[in-house]
Amino acid sequence: METLYPYADVLHFAEQVFIKIGCSAEQAHIAAESLLSADLSGVDSHGVARLSGYVRLWEVKRVNPRPDMRIVHETPSTATFDGDAGLGLVVAPAAMAIAIEKARQAGTGWVAIRNSNHFGIAGHHAALALPHNMIGIALTNASALVSPALSKERMLGTNPIAMAIPAGEEPPFLADFATTTAANGKLEILQRKQEEAPFGWVQDKSGEPSTDPSVLKQGGMLLPLGGDREHGSHKGFMLGSMVDILSGVLSGANFGPWVPPFPAYVPMPDNMPGFGIGHFVGAMRIDAFRPAEAFKKDMDQWIRRFRQATPSDPNQLVVIPGDPERIMKAQRLKQGIPLLPEVVNDLKELGNKLGLSW
Amino acid sequence: METLYPYADVLHFAEQVFIKIGCSAEQAHIAAESLLSADLSGVDSHGVARLSGYVRLWEVKRVNPRPDMRIVHETPSTATFDGDAGLGLVVAPAAMAIAIEKARQAGTGWVAIRNSNHFGIAGHHAALALPHNMIGIALTNASALVSPALSKERMLGTNPIAMAIPAGEEPPFLADFATTTAANGKLEILQRKQEEAPFGWVQDKSGEPSTDPSVLKQGGMLLPLGGDREHGSHKGFMLGSMVDILSGVLSGANFGPWVPPFPAYVPMPDNMPGFGIGHFVGAMRIDAFRPAEAFKKDMDQWIRRFRQATPSDPNQLVVIPGDPERIMKAQRLKQGIPLLPEVVNDLKELGNKLGLSW
Repeated sequence: METLYPYADVLHFAEQVFIKIGCSAEQAHIAAESLLSADLSGVDSHGVARLSGYVRLWEVKRVNPRPDMRIVHETPSTATFDGDAGLGLVVAPAAMAIAIEKARQAGTGWVAIRNSNHFGIAGHHAALALPHNMIGIALTNASALVSPALSKERMLGTNPIAMAIPAGEEPPFLADFATTTAANGKLEILQRKQEEAPFGWVQDKSGEPSTDPSVLKQGGMLLPLGGDREHGSHKGFMLGSMVDILSGVLSGANFGPWVPPFPAYVPMPDNMPGFGIGHFVGAMRIDAFRPAEAFKKDMDQWIRRFRQATPSDPNQLVVIPGDPERIMKAQRLKQGIPLLPEVVNDLKELGNKLGLSW
Repeated sequence: METLYPYADVLHFAEQVFIKIGCSAEQAHIAAESLLSADLSGVDSHGVARLSGYVRLWEVKRVNPRPDMRIVHETPSTATFDGDAGLGLVVAPAAMAIAIEKARQAGTGWVAIRNSNHFGIAGHHAALALPHNMIGIALTNASALVSPALSKERMLGTNPIAMAIPAGEEPPFLADFATTTAANGKLEILQRKQEEAPFGWVQDKSGEPSTDPSVLKQGGMLLPLGGDREHGSHKGFMLGSMVDILSGVLSGANFGPWVPPFPAYVPMPDNMPGFGIGHFVGAMRIDAFRPAEAFKKDMDQWIRRFRQATPSDPNQLVVIPGDPERIMKAQRLKQGIPLLPEVVNDLKELGNKLGLSW
């Protein structure tokens, strides 16, 4: 059903698309790399399948291809960064570079970002800290699809948390997860397979539990991690809220139900309190706490011990965060990126529209 | 069944106990306040009910009542702090004071703490940042009672996350939660009531789902937030791991299955890689990002909007993190701390042993 396309070809096409909408060659490259990191990691819902969605945001003038990104306030370890409505795919790496430079000087660097757009997958940005012997953190808010615990109103985005932690001989620890029970991409897979979702993933618009993976199209909602109150949905709600406040309120971006939607045809919320979408990124220099080599030796021990934790099923070992994405990346760099026919058609149409050949 | 005791009396008793084991008057006061913040917040499992447990740790020389707490490494925005085996109830506020001072100078302050003991409830320490117009963060690892996703081995503690965020006219946002589906205290309540736990809270020692709230006494385990793999237990595992790595590995404390147990009679793990228990605390000055007044105005809007989110059940509104604890605190300061007969007996015995009257 899916066809494999070489990574380099897909990257080149995405770069050309970003250049066509007016990005500089350098920013087009950064944007394409950020976007395709999702495909390489196996998060197919957030990768090149969304390319035409980004272009539609440019068409309605919600994406500025030549942003004047700037620091609007700073201290030795912090900055507030205005993305000037640029692609989040470009704004977030620029903010991360500031965080890394501040961490070099002050031990840690923390950047709250306003006036941005969707930034792809959080883990890609967090991982930018790794080559500098730093722990990287990336959070973002997103348009409301998730109800708080005890509510039946869409109030929060899937608001992911990513943290990248360097190790020594072992590959890095890389956590990247939506603060919901399940991400939207998993619902899309179930819809394609015409299967039901487990209880605890979604509810319908009247707040009733549902197993219909297409319920979001009928006004339904994703549920915060935990699923229901008895299983800790108030904790998932707190996590999503923390991400929203650091990304949105601390930066001066929009927050809660006022975060701009990704689909360009969905009208913007009324009375928006801030600027665009918000992110929050950070970098912590390891040797601001301990000698990096001692830390990495202990991280290797941590990773090896957890990898050896007694499995419930002897055929399925404990998964170290980052391992599945790393294995997927190696495989896809070699074999290609699998794309569904509808994604390929969409990219062909996009190419036709912009005078590019897919 | 429970009897109410005035807060001031319970605080005075706890202070006297800490003085009897050798703490300075000042540190005894800080320790008693930290400990009783749990009772005031309604987290009865972590408050004065544990006082005799702390004393038993002193008896086996695992708690040093006169710690030489010191910064072992620092940068403008970070410090690594050695608690010298002091009470975590004292070490964590001292570390938080360093984080706050660093945030005053550098915008943010982050302190990794090794060689400490249990610190009570995380939210108390995070909230110390609030009067300074700062966001406060507190994490700690703890002895292993939780299995990773897909495992049947105890590898992580309940590893809580706390974040305190100031608002303007509204009370502060205060999240404080274990990274498990349910905390141990809730299992204790079910045991007393002789009720079953929902599936997804615990598993037995062979890794089978269980509804027995006493299963931890038979080698069972708490489950990471999410409960099972289908409902995102890998996300709870990632959260608990992040807390463990920042608290344990980054500070040079113990981590994973090597974290020292709270009960003094439980032998210490073999081949411990670090020093004591680890915490991680942080403070971020609001006006290192935005003018504090503008932020607080937006936080008020955030809190009010979420409080008004359409409830699933019109009789149960959405809960803003921190509201239940604040309401409980006001009530208990007025009416007293409810203590079960077995807790009172335990405190009386403790008083007798130390020559204090309860």
